[in-house]
Amino acid sequence: MRQMVFALTAVAALAAGVAYTAAASAQAEGEAAPVFGIKLPPGYRDWRLISVAHEEGMLNDLRAILGNDVAVTAARNGTRPFPDGTIIARLAWDYAPLAESEKAFGHHQSYVAGTPKNGVQFMVKDSVKYASTGGWGFAQFNDGKAADEAVINTCFGCHAVVEDRDYVFNRYAP
Amino acid sequence: MRQMVFALTAVAALAAGVAYTAAASAQAEGEAAPVFGIKLPPGYRDWRLISVAHEEGMLNDLRAILGNDVAVTAARNGTRPFPDGTIIARLAWDYAPLAESEKAFGHHQSYVAGTPKNGVQFMVKDSVKYASTGGWGFAQFNDGKAADEAVINTCFGCHAVVEDRDYVFNRYAP
Repeated sequence: MRQMVFALTAVAALAAGVAYTAAASAQAEGEAAPVFGIKLPPGYRDWRLISVAHEEGMLNDLRAILGNDVAVTAARNGTRPFPDGTIIARLAWDYAPLAESEKAFGHHQSYVAGTPKNGVQFMVKDSVKYASTGGWGFAQFNDGKAADEAVINTCFGCHAVVEDRDYVFNRYAP
Repeated sequence: MRQMVFALTAVAALAAGVAYTAAASAQAEGEAAPVFGIKLPPGYRDWRLISVAHEEGMLNDLRAILGNDVAVTAARNGTRPFPDGTIIARLAWDYAPLAESEKAFGHHQSYVAGTPKNGVQFMVKDSVKYASTGGWGFAQFNDGKAADEAVINTCFGCHAVVEDRDYVFNRYAP
């Protein structure tokens, strides 16, 4: 079951990546994503870094996990569950070989963040409003446009794998 | 020659990683690194994200590039050369498979930041003070302790590969 959930999520994320590429332009930040009603948090790109990751396979990206102040403080201090007001952002980019180092080494050595892909995802903690999903609401935006309900509905099933870490995969990277 | 410079840098970085592991504890932030006299910038872990990367081979890490306000503004705007006052930080962590997703997928899927490795490196722009090295001073700290001169002297030779990008490998990840 878990494998299926992961696979579905991967497919959904891939589809979202395609949708991102096809999107004509960024939509208004005021558009709320379906299911949890979350809007694109303004200024999230300026948030501090929680950690970084690389996804293989169909996702094939480099990603960064950023957090608002509540999130970063809790992540650093190991506060679990995360307090209400926590917002965690997952950004992702194409997994791109760096030509300069490939040339120098004679083989792939460095992979860097290319163009954005797989959308920008958010987890928002509100223990009352989102009580039925572990206190978390989920959202994804592809080039500023909210992903549809089918995508959003895959989020919680996958994050349930790490229920014992308050549904958060990432750990703070010091 | 370039291959040799890269190889030497990789070895130096690897050695620094070993030194980091062996370091008993963090040293005072006031210790200046050799050659360029740079001290560990306070609060760098709170700086904003410029980009992320993965290095293969001996380095085998996930890394994040952070910048102080001058650096991030210039990186975003494509300002080259970077203005004096720019400080760019390169953090790195062990390239660690995430057990939860490996279990779910049946193979490695997610790699995340593990324990810190390969030190924390800095580039500091001062077009007068560091005129002989493209306006950049370099430093590395392993668990807070400045890396020795042999390590620091490998920096500029490698960054000269991207002289046309003001000696900076990374590009801003939007």
